[in-house]
Amino acid sequence: MTSRRQPVLGILGGGQLARMLALAAAPLGVKTLVVDSAADACAGQVATLITADWTDYGALEAFAREVDVVTFDFENVPAETAHWLAQRVAVFPAPRALAVAQDRLAEKTLFRDCGLTTPDFMAIDTRADLDRALSTIGAPAILKTRRLGYDGKGQFRLRSLADADAAWAALGAQASAHGLILEAFVPFERELSVIAVRSRDGDFRTWPLTQNWHTDGVLSLSLAPAPDVGTLQERATQLARTLAERLEYVGVFALELFVKDGQLLGNEMAPRVHNSGHWTIEGALTSQFENHVRAVLGMPLGDTAARGLSAMFNWIGELPDAAPVLSAVDAHWHDYGKQPRLGRKVGHATVCAGNAKQMVERLGGIAHALGRDQQVDPAVRELG
Amino acid sequence: MTSRRQPVLGILGGGQLARMLALAAAPLGVKTLVVDSAADACAGQVATLITADWTDYGALEAFAREVDVVTFDFENVPAETAHWLAQRVAVFPAPRALAVAQDRLAEKTLFRDCGLTTPDFMAIDTRADLDRALSTIGAPAILKTRRLGYDGKGQFRLRSLADADAAWAALGAQASAHGLILEAFVPFERELSVIAVRSRDGDFRTWPLTQNWHTDGVLSLSLAPAPDVGTLQERATQLARTLAERLEYVGVFALELFVKDGQLLGNEMAPRVHNSGHWTIEGALTSQFENHVRAVLGMPLGDTAARGLSAMFNWIGELPDAAPVLSAVDAHWHDYGKQPRLGRKVGHATVCAGNAKQMVERLGGIAHALGRDQQVDPAVRELG
Ligand SMILES: Nc1ncnc2c1ncn2[C@@H]1O[C@H](COP(=O)(O)OP(=O)(O)OP(=O)(O)O)[C@@H](O)[C@H]1O
Ligand SMILES: Nc1ncnc2c1ncn2[C@@H]1O[C@H](COP(=O)(O)OP(=O)(O)OP(=O)(O)O)[C@@H](O)[C@H]1O
Repeated sequence: MTSRRQPVLGILGGGQLARMLALAAAPLGVKTLVVDSAADACAGQVATLITADWTDYGALEAFAREVDVVTFDFENVPAETAHWLAQRVAVFPAPRALAVAQDRLAEKTLFRDCGLTTPDFMAIDTRADLDRALSTIGAPAILKTRRLGYDGKGQFRLRSLADADAAWAALGAQASAHGLILEAFVPFERELSVIAVRSRDGDFRTWPLTQNWHTDGVLSLSLAPAPDVGTLQERATQLARTLAERLEYVGVFALELFVKDGQLLGNEMAPRVHNSGHWTIEGALTSQFENHVRAVLGMPLGDTAARGLSAMFNWIGELPDAAPVLSAVDAHWHDYGKQPRLGRKVGHATVCAGNAKQMVERLGGIAHALGRDQQVDPAVRELG
Repeated sequence: MTSRRQPVLGILGGGQLARMLALAAAPLGVKTLVVDSAADACAGQVATLITADWTDYGALEAFAREVDVVTFDFENVPAETAHWLAQRVAVFPAPRALAVAQDRLAEKTLFRDCGLTTPDFMAIDTRADLDRALSTIGAPAILKTRRLGYDGKGQFRLRSLADADAAWAALGAQASAHGLILEAFVPFERELSVIAVRSRDGDFRTWPLTQNWHTDGVLSLSLAPAPDVGTLQERATQLARTLAERLEYVGVFALELFVKDGQLLGNEMAPRVHNSGHWTIEGALTSQFENHVRAVLGMPLGDTAARGLSAMFNWIGELPDAAPVLSAVDAHWHDYGKQPRLGRKVGHATVCAGNAKQMVERLGGIAHALGRDQQVDPAVRELG
């Protein structure tokens, strides 16, 4: 019996995604090493944490020496950091794929190249660009930073052309550093996401489509498999596959979609495990976290089928009382071990059920006990 | 929003049980602190590890100050250590329950008091006791140390009365330190275990009965729910409840049972999460690890129903090739992150299925790919 060396997964960023990746990596025999600038980054509770900035090349040098592969908990890691690491160690997804997903303009251009319609959009560098774009696209519209946006941050919604001044006042200063983009506001029927994974040798899989509801630009509730999607499942899978192959993508990513007049429109791509895929921990045969670890380390992918129906509540700011979830049947609590803070994602809960009727009962029961009927109402309506 | 302090679970022993407890504790927002004398104890990969001996009271003092509750990964923690800690911090299971389970004589006596028949047994302190016991109990029989046995260690099987000398040569030296016990060898039809949990406020639950197969005294394969148990389920649950209440037990324990002439006989009680309950990670609505954490920390217990059928392979000594498991549907790999060593439990895999036919196919497929048909043969026969 020869002694063994366990593979080491390196993660840039030590938030809840890194934490859940580390928890999925352990049963695979994989150790996790995380880099985060915060000494209390929550992934540090279950993995080894290097407290350092992503531009601290001394620390990154030591990190690169210890790990077999590098991945991300956060898509806005500086491109230079990703490139620098890629010269020393395997980095998945590759810096090129990361760069596309970091830029709303490059991303939407790629979507169109892959045959995925997007809302109308125009790049904005100056105030004059904004006026021109508004006269073409019309209102309502959304002005967004091209880079560094997440959870609805770096966005301004224009109800009418009269909001142009206010929009520019809010985001104009970021035009030169990050660039801006104006998008037509889509009065969508539904929001869906497809979580997909591609392995190092090109094996590709998607989980069933997830339906999502946002509050103030932040995910509030997910339901999976999304009910009554018909041919949209096949279409979304095919689009995700085309994207993944174009980018030679390795690992898990999410493609966020709007449904308008029964057709899919591409909103954005997240080059990492995604909040709308958290239900896969209990709700699928293999979770997005486990398959991401498998993919980046070159292991075979696991089956992505759903076990039944799942719904995920996001806990924003602070955790509600855990007892109603802990006491419910097939409900699963996820506390990220973070300090409470306004707007912060601090945890989630997933409720599983065998059919829609059972899901409506379980979801309703928990929401009612928590005084959060509002959070589940749209999903309950969708389930009929 | 006031800042929060996360509960801290302390575990004596940092092996695979502590590792799986820590992995289950994290989503509950519970931090884990482990004490083990080995600096490379495998739980240290996912939890904070204090490298110290269980008799190092300086280290234990610091440990006790940091944790909210203490529990065990190993039942043979010295009784003095458990008592010493219990004067400083909540310890579950309580030292008294631990003491009973540490001593085969006390354990079997309790079983009988609770109405659970056991194999015939007699305490052995001297060579003359052994002769007397053999003439009463007869052969075949098993001589065991009363304390500190696990995985079939500290046992000697006597085929006939002529083996008395050999048995005494093997274990006689331990008679004064640990005591010995002679048990009748039971030609059992099946081995079952019931995993049970009791909360701090007396809520009691069992998982469905598990059927187990041992090789050389070490668990090789488990199947759950055990097929065709009829009224044995109810009987086992009632016995486990009686035991738990007598001991005012808090946490998870396993009751190992033989079935002989269709009746249950008590073999032993393990005062901790148990190898025959590993299938509950994927196969039950709440795992034994999660419910143990919940129980000792005073949280509500989760539902213990099985999702379908599960079978668990134990990996002893070294891991087989992971690929056939990783590539199979609803099969789950558990690498404990240990160095290979003869006889050491280094990992397990759980295979889930919706029905017996599917289980036979999946189990057979994996075993065949691994060249381990023998390991699953008895379970496949049991499944019909
Ligand atoms: N063009 C649009 N039309 C209608 N709604 C939109 C549009 N763009 C964004 N939204 C709404 O705002 C939400 C967040 O927007 P977007 O996905 O662009 O932001 P983000 O900051 O990248 O969010 P996340 O981090 O959640 O992916 C969307 O899920 C959608 O509900
Ligand atoms: N009296 C008996 N009659 C028949 N078989 C027995 C008897 N005692 C033990 N065995 C066999 O040996 C196995 C291990 O024995 P036992 O449970 O006493 O050992 P242990 O060292 O405490 O094991 P573990 O750590 O697995 O609980 C049993 O599961 C059973 O298969």
